[in-house]
Amino acid sequence: MHSFNYEVLNMFDFSKVRTIDDFPTPGIKFYDITTLLKDEKEFKNVINDMWEVAKQLNPNVLVALETRGYFFGPTLSYLMGIPFVPIRKKGKLPAATYSASYALEYGTDSIEIHQDAIEEHQRILLLDDVLATGGTMSAAIQLVRNFNPEKVDTMFLIELTALNGRDKLKNCSINSIIQI
Amino acid sequence: MHSFNYEVLNMFDFSKVRTIDDFPTPGIKFYDITTLLKDEKEFKNVINDMWEVAKQLNPNVLVALETRGYFFGPTLSYLMGIPFVPIRKKGKLPAATYSASYALEYGTDSIEIHQDAIEEHQRILLLDDVLATGGTMSAAIQLVRNFNPEKVDTMFLIELTALNGRDKLKNCSINSIIQI
Repeated sequence: MHSFNYEVLNMFDFSKVRTIDDFPTPGIKFYDITTLLKDEKEFKNVINDMWEVAKQLNPNVLVALETRGYFFGPTLSYLMGIPFVPIRKKGKLPAATYSASYALEYGTDSIEIHQDAIEEHQRILLLDDVLATGGTMSAAIQLVRNFNPEKVDTMFLIELTALNGRDKLKNCSINSIIQI
Repeated sequence: MHSFNYEVLNMFDFSKVRTIDDFPTPGIKFYDITTLLKDEKEFKNVINDMWEVAKQLNPNVLVALETRGYFFGPTLSYLMGIPFVPIRKKGKLPAATYSASYALEYGTDSIEIHQDAIEEHQRILLLDDVLATGGTMSAAIQLVRNFNPEKVDTMFLIELTALNGRDKLKNCSINSIIQI
């Protein structure tokens, strides 16, 4: 489901994202956004596109996933004047946390959020750079459900549609700036 | 050396930073900035303070250190209209990198920057959340020297003066929003 009007978007220049084959492992095509971040004009376009989407979703808290979600999340929080909350990999947050696991190619890993990070009944916007298989974002949705939110929306810079990640994300809207 | 006029700063409310004893290891007092990030008013104050400092340093590229430097760096780049470049922990960057090592309590670790991240002769501002022993920032300075910069400045949200981290940082200015 796309819950916003794409026509307001400036649509950043996707050619600024560098693709690298066989990283981090053979057979994986990696989308390197560092080439986008260092282009100040395109970075501004991307943030402004995300801001337009976020305005229509009307969150009152923004949650980003480690690590690359942090390249966009705090800026949007600053522009919108809403709290920023990081979801971190396990062992990084110092106070009491909720935890959720997700599958890796071999074994599992987990992510965490502080138990006092978010009030109840908020409109939560979850943010990451790429929607691939959806495993990590699915765990993130599970994490924020602990706060009994009024609603949960998700936003991605890039959605890799062939991997069907959106099938894993339940009871939330899925908003991607660009679909590949 | 402080190379800017502190009087322009709004000086954020330091009580919003939570301190947690014995994290990540016994004897360490951890400064938890997640409590600051979720307070949208204080986060805005902090960013605006950093922006004032950065304006006086007049960089044309901003480089932040993984992970917590990313909570501030992209927003400053957005506001100033200058490139954002992440220094990452080893193995995370997909293209050719420069690498530098720093000492841990046991052994060493290393950080990396893409070789094509920065042009020569730039004014580089390096950013991290906390200046403690200075080991990581010292490695970061070594990394950016590969680009023959016109100058290098460093900025921190919090400087823990008792650890004498600034003694490790050579040939750069050291600018901290608050000294503890």
